Amino acid sequence: MNKIIDVTELALRDAHQSLLATRLALEDMAPACADIDRAGYWSVECWGGATFDACIRFLNEDPWERLRTFRRLLPNSRLQMLLRGQNLLGYRHYEDGIVDRFVDKAAENGMDVFRIFDALNDIRNIRHSVGAVRRNGKHAQGTICYTVSPLHTSETFVEMGERLVELGCDSICLKDMAALLRPQAAYDIVKGIKTRCGEGVRIHVHTHSTTGVTLVSLMKAIEAGADCVDTAISSLSLGPGHNPTESLVAMLDGSGYEARLNKSRLQRIKDHFAALRPRYQAFMSNIHGVDTDIFDSQIPGGMISNMESQLKQQKAENRLAEVLLEVPRVREDAGFPPLVTPSSQIVGTQAVFNVLMGRYKVMSSEFADLMLGYYGKAPGERDPAVLALAEQHAHKKAIVQRPADLLQPEWEALSAAATALAGCNGSAEDVLTYAMFPQVAPAFFTSRALGPKNLGAAPDVAPSGTGVEPGAAVPLRTPVAYDVKLNGHSHRVLVTPVGA
Amino acid sequence: MNKIIDVTELALRDAHQSLLATRLALEDMAPACADIDRAGYWSVECWGGATFDACIRFLNEDPWERLRTFRRLLPNSRLQMLLRGQNLLGYRHYEDGIVDRFVDKAAENGMDVFRIFDALNDIRNIRHSVGAVRRNGKHAQGTICYTVSPLHTSETFVEMGERLVELGCDSICLKDMAALLRPQAAYDIVKGIKTRCGEGVRIHVHTHSTTGVTLVSLMKAIEAGADCVDTAISSLSLGPGHNPTESLVAMLDGSGYEARLNKSRLQRIKDHFAALRPRYQAFMSNIHGVDTDIFDSQIPGGMISNMESQLKQQKAENRLAEVLLEVPRVREDAGFPPLVTPSSQIVGTQAVFNVLMGRYKVMSSEFADLMLGYYGKAPGERDPAVLALAEQHAHKKAIVQRPADLLQPEWEALSAAATALAGCNGSAEDVLTYAMFPQVAPAFFTSRALGPKNLGAAPDVAPSGTGVEPGAAVPLRTPVAYDVKLNGHSHRVLVTPVGA
Repeated sequence: MNKIIDVTELALRDAHQSLLATRLALEDMAPACADIDRAGYWSVECWGGATFDACIRFLNEDPWERLRTFRRLLPNSRLQMLLRGQNLLGYRHYEDGIVDRFVDKAAENGMDVFRIFDALNDIRNIRHSVGAVRRNGKHAQGTICYTVSPLHTSETFVEMGERLVELGCDSICLKDMAALLRPQAAYDIVKGIKTRCGEGVRIHVHTHSTTGVTLVSLMKAIEAGADCVDTAISSLSLGPGHNPTESLVAMLDGSGYEARLNKSRLQRIKDHFAALRPRYQAFMSNIHGVDTDIFDSQIPGGMISNMESQLKQQKAENRLAEVLLEVPRVREDAGFPPLVTPSSQIVGTQAVFNVLMGRYKVMSSEFADLMLGYYGKAPGERDPAVLALAEQHAHKKAIVQRPADLLQPEWEALSAAATALAGCNGSAEDVLTYAMFPQVAPAFFTSRALGPKNLGAAPDVAPSGTGVEPGAAVPLRTPVAYDVKLNGHSHRVLVTPVGA
Repeated sequence: MNKIIDVTELALRDAHQSLLATRLALEDMAPACADIDRAGYWSVECWGGATFDACIRFLNEDPWERLRTFRRLLPNSRLQMLLRGQNLLGYRHYEDGIVDRFVDKAAENGMDVFRIFDALNDIRNIRHSVGAVRRNGKHAQGTICYTVSPLHTSETFVEMGERLVELGCDSICLKDMAALLRPQAAYDIVKGIKTRCGEGVRIHVHTHSTTGVTLVSLMKAIEAGADCVDTAISSLSLGPGHNPTESLVAMLDGSGYEARLNKSRLQRIKDHFAALRPRYQAFMSNIHGVDTDIFDSQIPGGMISNMESQLKQQKAENRLAEVLLEVPRVREDAGFPPLVTPSSQIVGTQAVFNVLMGRYKVMSSEFADLMLGYYGKAPGERDPAVLALAEQHAHKKAIVQRPADLLQPEWEALSAAATALAGCNGSAEDVLTYAMFPQVAPAFFTSRALGPKNLGAAPDVAPSGTGVEPGAAVPLRTPVAYDVKLNGHSHRVLVTPVGA
């Protein structure tokens, strides 16, 4: 008898977050849901991460309505989300009352599996969400953010797994957001947790495919006893995304393991996303093939493009190489945090500041907070001199307690502020939307009635009519006349995309 | 101590054959050779397969001069070629005297390692080349063509490996030209040969990456004892090509195995090919990402595009689905040959004939020859009715002996015909070129003096600073091919973002 390997499908969340800048419209996902719902996945990741932000910022779409739609379209599936622990889906710490309300509402609207992580792997930032999920009778998955540093060994990750099990998590996720998880490390960590905590502890493994090695890592994780792996349907896979679901199925053939998925449904899901992907070309990641430089720089691809655009704004594009060398120093000063939202942005921005203005001459308030413990406990020792500078910059002292313990209850104030906004419907969901993104929510509430935009529909062919925002880059579909200077002569040139 | 895993770099042959239709110009490969020569590869595949044909058909380049150039540019490397056994680099069987001359000349011009295969896995078609290579004191690698059929089990491939070892091969190659080799099969076959023939038998594994699973297969082959694996530098990898060299290196980190390659040289090789790849966009394979349909159809991607173009010529594009269903029936009728040059073309063309004109109403002479044993012994039983039809069509009887045993010495006749051609330099190399491609060689001899073409040079587009002005907000991240009308004339223009 083969051991069944469960699969989480990422197409509806992390796949398009990683490949299409989180821009996939709900109406482009909905037609695939009947097949996804019956393909045999253990769960369908479809919410959380950056999707909440993208919904209200770019798509004029109510993220709670999206969740309810998925619940309706995927009646037989476990819906899964990615939750940033005490940060929820925002970029700051929330007090426990807000965490409770958020988890209650997510559960009430249909969420089943909550994958909960903290960017610093600080268990204290995960604990309250885990309790809230379990109180709702839902599945709380505690997450280890995998990273590479002089401090991080397989043993440190096994220890964290053990602590997550002690916390009462229903399962453990080993999450490799930068595709740095090599096969042997995957094997050692999964094996270590199973050995330490018992074979019955359920382990899920999430990898990205950027470096080209992580399907092998999934194989070794499975050999070590992993119960579930994350993949994306092939037409929304690879590059900075994930390993293809169909390749995982084929990989296991004859191995004594089996991913029991319905092949004809996978075929239809693949065809569906293959057909719409070209419409989102403008948002497509420019990482193709594999990027193994990450193993040396340990800087995820998304972080590099962030830093590039910051440098461009300062007309200092030529200093990227210096910034790439500065990132590991800043990371070491901060005690080797994993580089994942929000620590990747914080460390990257500070590295840019250091190069442009001198080391720690200017310090972002976020970096000061990171140094001072306001995001949680760093994995290693922080540099004492930089710590002292951070206290000067921020005019406050370093803390050792859980950051959320410093916060006062804020539901009433947030509720009052949100319900005062034009277009706010007064629901707890709207208050939570405002709580996550107070800068973005007001405009969204005002425009919500216009309905969701489909950014994948080019304006000249758009059936849905909402079209593309003015100024948004769209792929060239129609002939365009250019004046072209060639060898000093001006020519009128008509350019037509081949096969358009 | 880690076990060292040897690596064969494919960039100079199979990688551009698979990704760029074998069009890569020698002058675009030469600058990478110094780094390739010192990166630590076990061998550098750089000749044979379709490169000989492509040189004289498309590039106006003397393939023998290419070999001498590589010999000069790669003084520290084992040069490796792919040889089609008794077919050499052509598409018919040659008598043993021609095989001897070809191998002698290849060795004399610098070839070290001869990977020798037969499309039907008929050892009799491999035997003479192996002897010729060994007589020259060079490395003879006997090749198992991996395929999937009701007849083919891991055991059948292990048995073939055993026979190749008995033949005196210096090493065995397990060659997976269609990316069908799943991890467990890779493990079982390599383990089986090592167990049966001894750990000292050297095993190389060649896979394509089309289905996305074969880096895992390389890992399992290595765990089973494989000594050397084939990869391509990342910027010429993936899709219908091969697994990335850098990913292999990273995959093995910490595993007890090690590919001892020089990382900074790999980086420079990668950068070199990354920079020139966009210039070859017009020849780029249109398979992106992964294609796992092959597992069901067992029809390699290249074969499908061949059949598509045949159907298009007959204005019958809409009948591809029928042809795809017909291929496995034709293959079964022919005794389940592996689908690789030339059997893939022969089976594919017959399937097209069957669909368009009725089953075996018309039979290609090549398919009749395949049925009648003129390419060698099929792996399984052939359909008796189709065999009888083949005898009728071809007006000859089926044979059981080695096809080359029916051939008369032909060097003198070929030599006379070749040297009579304008532009033939009278060398044995020129006679062999004529022997391989008698239809193409005459025109090549005439135009040879004009020198090699670089089809990647995109002569219509000036190197930089010209081209399309960024008047529209079009995010060109990758080169795009356009039809451009200029002064009433149509040009195919490749537009590449400056600095991309």
